[in-house]
Amino acid sequence: MDEGARAVSSISRAYADRVEVRGRDLSGDLMGRLSFTEYFHLLLTGEEPTEDQRYFLDLLLVAIAEHGMMPTNVAARMTLAADPESLQGAVAAGILGAGPVVLGTSEECARLLADARASGRAPLEIVRELHAAGGKVPGFGHPVHKPVDPRAERILELADERGVSGPHVELARAFRDAVAEEWGRPLTMNVSMPIAAVLLDLGFPATAAKAVPILARTAGLLAHLAEERERPVGFLLAKAAEEAVEYER
Amino acid sequence: MDEGARAVSSISRAYADRVEVRGRDLSGDLMGRLSFTEYFHLLLTGEEPTEDQRYFLDLLLVAIAEHGMMPTNVAARMTLAADPESLQGAVAAGILGAGPVVLGTSEECARLLADARASGRAPLEIVRELHAAGGKVPGFGHPVHKPVDPRAERILELADERGVSGPHVELARAFRDAVAEEWGRPLTMNVSMPIAAVLLDLGFPATAAKAVPILARTAGLLAHLAEERERPVGFLLAKAAEEAVEYER
Amino acid sequence: MDEGARAVSSISRAYADRVEVRGRDLSGDLMGRLSFTEYFHLLLTGEEPTEDQRYFLDLLLVAIAEHGMMPTNVAARMTLAADPESLQGAVAAGILGAGPVVLGTSEECARLLADARASGRAPLEIVRELHAAGGKVPGFGHPVHKPVDPRAERILELADERGVSGPHVELARAFRDAVAEEWGRPLTMNVSMPIAAVLLDLGFPATAAKAVPILARTAGLLAHLAEERERPVGFLLAKAAEEAVEYER
Amino acid sequence: MDEGARAVSSISRAYADRVEVRGRDLSGDLMGRLSFTEYFHLLLTGEEPTEDQRYFLDLLLVAIAEHGMMPTNVAARMTLAADPESLQGAVAAGILGAGPVVLGTSEECARLLADARASGRAPLEIVRELHAAGGKVPGFGHPVHKPVDPRAERILELADERGVSGPHVELARAFRDAVAEEWGRPLTMNVSMPIAAVLLDLGFPATAAKAVPILARTAGLLAHLAEERERPVGFLLAKAAEEAVEYER
Repeated sequence: MDEGARAVSSISRAYADRVEVRGRDLSGDLMGRLSFTEYFHLLLTGEEPTEDQRYFLDLLLVAIAEHGMMPTNVAARMTLAADPESLQGAVAAGILGAGPVVLGTSEECARLLADARASGRAPLEIVRELHAAGGKVPGFGHPVHKPVDPRAERILELADERGVSGPHVELARAFRDAVAEEWGRPLTMNVSMPIAAVLLDLGFPATAAKAVPILARTAGLLAHLAEERERPVGFLLAKAAEEAVEYER
Repeated sequence: MDEGARAVSSISRAYADRVEVRGRDLSGDLMGRLSFTEYFHLLLTGEEPTEDQRYFLDLLLVAIAEHGMMPTNVAARMTLAADPESLQGAVAAGILGAGPVVLGTSEECARLLADARASGRAPLEIVRELHAAGGKVPGFGHPVHKPVDPRAERILELADERGVSGPHVELARAFRDAVAEEWGRPLTMNVSMPIAAVLLDLGFPATAAKAVPILARTAGLLAHLAEERERPVGFLLAKAAEEAVEYER
Repeated sequence: MDEGARAVSSISRAYADRVEVRGRDLSGDLMGRLSFTEYFHLLLTGEEPTEDQRYFLDLLLVAIAEHGMMPTNVAARMTLAADPESLQGAVAAGILGAGPVVLGTSEECARLLADARASGRAPLEIVRELHAAGGKVPGFGHPVHKPVDPRAERILELADERGVSGPHVELARAFRDAVAEEWGRPLTMNVSMPIAAVLLDLGFPATAAKAVPILARTAGLLAHLAEERERPVGFLLAKAAEEAVEYER
Repeated sequence: MDEGARAVSSISRAYADRVEVRGRDLSGDLMGRLSFTEYFHLLLTGEEPTEDQRYFLDLLLVAIAEHGMMPTNVAARMTLAADPESLQGAVAAGILGAGPVVLGTSEECARLLADARASGRAPLEIVRELHAAGGKVPGFGHPVHKPVDPRAERILELADERGVSGPHVELARAFRDAVAEEWGRPLTMNVSMPIAAVLLDLGFPATAAKAVPILARTAGLLAHLAEERERPVGFLLAKAAEEAVEYER
């Protein structure tokens, strides 16, 4: 780091009599006017969303906030059981489990789509290369949803209906066909792929593909932790996990 | 734990062809119909919000998502600088700093208001007791906002305007007067107190008083971390902190 | 915080040509001379340990580093499975589960013993008060170890053998008798109580009662995470936990 | 995951009357006999260490436990200031900052050395390739220590003295020469490189190269957090960091 480097931020600043966020007055202008989703868009990008951006940001956040007793929810509930006073510790433990294997593929999908678009290479060619290298194609395959992921289908359907499907949604579908051809059978296109495609078609920055799932999942975690306080199951879950283990010397 | 204890959850379950959340079909019913805020309400409470609940949940989430370069944002940015690939690790570090001193007083405010209401004791009596015991009254005092916290005032104003101010908002104001009398001068009523009061007047469960700030603050953290990726300042912040330290043997 | 407050630390400072820790030269004096346990003592207290302090610090760290597939190990392994690149994220998730219910009672035991000693009140009186108030006595009861916790017994035995048992170990035993009398049957004295008693008899500061278990448990977590990398079970554990849950609308 | 997959672990299991760790009896055999460092070796590898392995494991843990007011210590202290009750939350926040940029290069150094040894390629060739690709060579360069890192030199010196320097230490030195040639001037070999080299020469598994720094750093974090409890500076550090930020619209 050079000596003269300056630490600059353009998100917000608190003054004695007001809070300024992205150049706007928080209490005088934003509070009561923007929904939380609109405000999240403003925070993340510096701009208030268009109606389409708002609609699909809400849609995508709803699509991935919650999906049954996920590993992240289990870990968070066990953590709260061990320290009932620390709600934020349990949320943090749950978010740490939102890694690429469980939740992070939207970002990889966004990279796949953006690279394909920038290079102009055919999806089938890319898919063959990934397959030959022993890898998976991000966004395809799901342990529960077969033959289709109902959330993925619904996102594509609404994107078409509302006329926001653009080149990235088109590419997502082309990857689906390419994967089916290369693997010799259709694989489930999971929810990560249309999330990435719709965000890119709506002009969101690449970081949104990971930020959106993390915010969404935090809502699901908070619901599980509220339930855990009322009706604790954390230690039962831990016990069930422990009992599944065989000890070998 | 007794042998026959069962682990029961009523939030959501994933099936091959659908995800069921709070008894509703996620892709068939909720996606595209509910905003993220409405969905968060459904997840947390099992019920879709009334229009007033929705409006104030949006308002409160917007009010506390972001407040300048908070300690939690600093810690999160330093963490991302040290591990640029792990967005979820940096979010988790930021959330861990959302403890009672920085962010947790809404929950204590809710307890204060609920206890005062249940016991019927006068705020002045409670305030005197806390003061005599050497303690603070939760929800009063702010290091930056003086003489008033503009966010707190705006929440109370909108609660009055929309007719949702009830016994807890009334109590919050009574505590403000009591604090001023006991301390001999007005103290800033900070944003935590009206958050608690409005949530209770709208019938939210007590856990919401902590869950709402955590979800809100996650949005602010994600904005700072997106900016950190574009324009890193984490190590500059760490250096400024280190340089403030004197080493004594 | 007043304007003129200074940030002072007396632990360590890095210079271009050396690192100074607690006033000593790290590479010139400490490295190669101190064991990690001795160095931990120096870091924590500013003093190198006596031979007894060193012996029992090693003993206590060994006693509680690992105890089967604990909830914290399960949570950490699930977290690593979700994000295989982030070892530090998985360790952090595991440590977050080291809360008072699972691991934190040493600190409460230390408080109980210190308060009893300071006040001179009889253990039976204190135990009756806790029982009457519906509470538990910290350090008694264990879900697996019955009728005794072999680790607790071994610590007491070695403390006696080496002549370090002092007033706090004596009090720990008096609490065991008092608990048996009040409950009408012996309860297991678990490992937390002798850890606290021995640390206090050896002159450790109160914070050590929590710091020692956290350092110890980190070693156990790292072993589980190394095994998880070689032989992954994180998702199997998550699945076993999920399958134990019944969904109710 | 196939249906019949079994969750197997060979680390430890708790029974009513004993705890078995790596096939040994914890209270009957290990407690009081093994130092914490020896026990960490047993936990991690399944074997008790040789005298050389024990000596250098202690040395390496001491070498990297603490290094002034590091970003991780700053983040942890700010987190404890915000939630003084949650020592484990603050430790977790600190560990999350132990990412590759700050602490993780030992693992990359181990990979570099192991690959060079397996392929038989000359260090200069590898260094040129990395440089041409715009990358850095892991283990070289340090923001504070110039021209040498005293910890790195001391580790190499003791490895030579005790006769444990083998092919990986030799390769580490060859990389130092290669880097100096390629860059046209010597770069500091930082502590990560000899840590990796000595661990590999002593037969440690590759995972140790990251596990050792994490355990070590936890000790430093616990010292800072004990000091923070006695003499809080967390908010002063946060303030100093905040004041370094310029807000731009």
